[in-house]
Amino acid sequence: MSAANAIYAQAGGVTSVINASAVGLIRAWRELHRPGKLFAAHDGVLGVLDEMLFDTGTFTSDDLSRLASTPGGAFGACRHVLNDADLARLLEVFCAYDIGYFFYNGGGGSAHACLDVARAAQAASYPLITAHIPKTIDNDLPHTDCCPGFGSTAKYLATAIQEASLDLASMSRSSSKVFILETMGRYAGWLTAACGLASRSPEEGPHLLLCPEIAFDEARFLSKVQATVDTFGYCSIAVAEGLTDASGQPIHAIGERDAAGDRQLGGIAPLLARLVTNRLGYKCHWAVADYLQRAARHLASATDCAQAEAVGRAAIELAEAGHRDFMPAIRRLADAPYRWDIVAVPLVQVITGDRLLPREFLDEEGFHLSAAGRRQLQPLIEGEAYPPFRDGLPDYFRPQFGWNGRHAVSRR
Amino acid sequence: MSAANAIYAQAGGVTSVINASAVGLIRAWRELHRPGKLFAAHDGVLGVLDEMLFDTGTFTSDDLSRLASTPGGAFGACRHVLNDADLARLLEVFCAYDIGYFFYNGGGGSAHACLDVARAAQAASYPLITAHIPKTIDNDLPHTDCCPGFGSTAKYLATAIQEASLDLASMSRSSSKVFILETMGRYAGWLTAACGLASRSPEEGPHLLLCPEIAFDEARFLSKVQATVDTFGYCSIAVAEGLTDASGQPIHAIGERDAAGDRQLGGIAPLLARLVTNRLGYKCHWAVADYLQRAARHLASATDCAQAEAVGRAAIELAEAGHRDFMPAIRRLADAPYRWDIVAVPLVQVITGDRLLPREFLDEEGFHLSAAGRRQLQPLIEGEAYPPFRDGLPDYFRPQFGWNGRHAVSRR
Repeated sequence: MSAANAIYAQAGGVTSVINASAVGLIRAWRELHRPGKLFAAHDGVLGVLDEMLFDTGTFTSDDLSRLASTPGGAFGACRHVLNDADLARLLEVFCAYDIGYFFYNGGGGSAHACLDVARAAQAASYPLITAHIPKTIDNDLPHTDCCPGFGSTAKYLATAIQEASLDLASMSRSSSKVFILETMGRYAGWLTAACGLASRSPEEGPHLLLCPEIAFDEARFLSKVQATVDTFGYCSIAVAEGLTDASGQPIHAIGERDAAGDRQLGGIAPLLARLVTNRLGYKCHWAVADYLQRAARHLASATDCAQAEAVGRAAIELAEAGHRDFMPAIRRLADAPYRWDIVAVPLVQVITGDRLLPREFLDEEGFHLSAAGRRQLQPLIEGEAYPPFRDGLPDYFRPQFGWNGRHAVSRR
Repeated sequence: MSAANAIYAQAGGVTSVINASAVGLIRAWRELHRPGKLFAAHDGVLGVLDEMLFDTGTFTSDDLSRLASTPGGAFGACRHVLNDADLARLLEVFCAYDIGYFFYNGGGGSAHACLDVARAAQAASYPLITAHIPKTIDNDLPHTDCCPGFGSTAKYLATAIQEASLDLASMSRSSSKVFILETMGRYAGWLTAACGLASRSPEEGPHLLLCPEIAFDEARFLSKVQATVDTFGYCSIAVAEGLTDASGQPIHAIGERDAAGDRQLGGIAPLLARLVTNRLGYKCHWAVADYLQRAARHLASATDCAQAEAVGRAAIELAEAGHRDFMPAIRRLADAPYRWDIVAVPLVQVITGDRLLPREFLDEEGFHLSAAGRRQLQPLIEGEAYPPFRDGLPDYFRPQFGWNGRHAVSRR
């Protein structure tokens, strides 16, 4: 690695452990003892375009410990598709700030963007090493055992439905008999499947997982709910927000009409609840966890936290070892006890498409985890990593950044 | 106290700490060293009517420790209004099982029911001591500083909106600018107000609390959201499910129509999100926590756990001291550090009506906590009381009850 400076940016929907990756990166950078600075960009690549860059060298080691257990993207993230003008502008900023490394922390979209940046630099003969640091609660990046952020959200959701199922069971004789939890995961069913970890025996909820990889069939669904209530007295369900029918049409866009002929909108959980109530006559409760699931640092998986920090650290270490334009990926070495290490995967391989939930991770009916699915997911939620608390609430780090404001090059 | 037996039953919507009250009661009963048995009824009073009674003497002390950190109603709860025939049947069962004590663990409805049972016993000259053990996440029972169950749900919701606000802030420049969390609390704004504890400075979310005690005014709401986004770049909102307009009409029943003229149904959070998007043009995210908030034992308040166990224990101790037909209530002795004890309040005083959120606990605008509100709520969420975990998930107690099945008296 040269003495050049580096830029780190956060992209896309954030997670409860993305800052742990930033901390892994910063710590490894410091351990190099190079004169170069590691800048964090404000609001992802937008901060690079705008030269809103923060020198991470100003963090104390106590700051870094606190940052590592704070959810959300502390530096700000963005959703922004880079066009040719943006790429030219990025190189201009890189040049002005003597940037030799670009670390982009995100999901599939940012892996693409990272490769675009690498190619633009190459075309302009600008010397740049890029690394895409993986992060997505959707767990849909290929060539990695899992994606940092996923394990903690999986742990949160499995705990949430375990707890809600106990609540539902208590009241089922004289009140609600069905509970539906809507999870994120628009195309991939990893999060919904992970809810199944809470069910250690057939009578323990959730009883039914609706993943987007399996087309929704209303009759089969209703019959399964009925059978579950007949057997256990209640039925607890996890459903992915992106559930579709056999034609690939999202269920939430189809809608169930209420008595007044109005269409039910706003979340698939309330829609399925209405369906169950109308057709089976059961009172339903439903929850939409939304941001709660991806920000729940208070219930992070210790495994996930360790992996999040490790991929950040490996971005530096693998670049030092000669890799460029790569993603530090998690490689599984053993299931139980879980063992893993980090390897470099070229970016061109990372952008080959989303990794959906394999069919064999669900049982024959497609309504629950298979043994293989459980073996894959179980280790990822293991271990607790509570943040510090103060006055009854998590004591998260809210740094006041001095975004430099000094612009080395004017914005075109 | 005589050598008679006792019955304990759980009622209404359960909480994450109701079992801690059961454990407090059971432990105190054991410490009396009387020959009488303490039975727990299956599914609340329904289990008394059906003679589904479990001898709590069979629990080991390890069982009790695990039960104390398990959410939901382990014995089953019910929503059931007692009619005259039920009351007669209860006395018949009490007589058959030599029941001298009836402990009913619930909210306002069960306080009424408990008094009905006491009066029926009195009218029949049946010697019975009753105690209503308070429990409701809504925190709306009078004559007690707070209600067991509330503090833990308050802690969960305040943490959830603190975390979601950090997520929202990260993405606000290029994505969603508004987040709305729907809380329980149909008539009382205690839970929504407690979300405000997460906001330790004006820029920290939540920025806006919508309690049912303050009539919803669309124009004022939209203007406040706009001003908050203008100032901080985003706006985080907690809203009570039971929000009403100036005429007392629930907002969720009014509904905002979408482009197709369909009415938005199913939760006030999605309804307000649509309003904000339609009128202000901001992308919104929303969450409905539902059962997640009242079952979240993984994030219980240590203060709440201690109070839940204490009211259970006090039901025995105050009966021993000669009280009858009462509620063990929490009395605040000091705010900070919080000090409290338990006193007996006659049931006739408990049923005098719901305790709504006092207006002075909100600020002048009515959109946030006042200093008085913060002083009242802060101590109730303090301290963490994590349950044991196994394989990455809470290791909750799922007792297999031998509901006796032996019926001493036939069901009429």
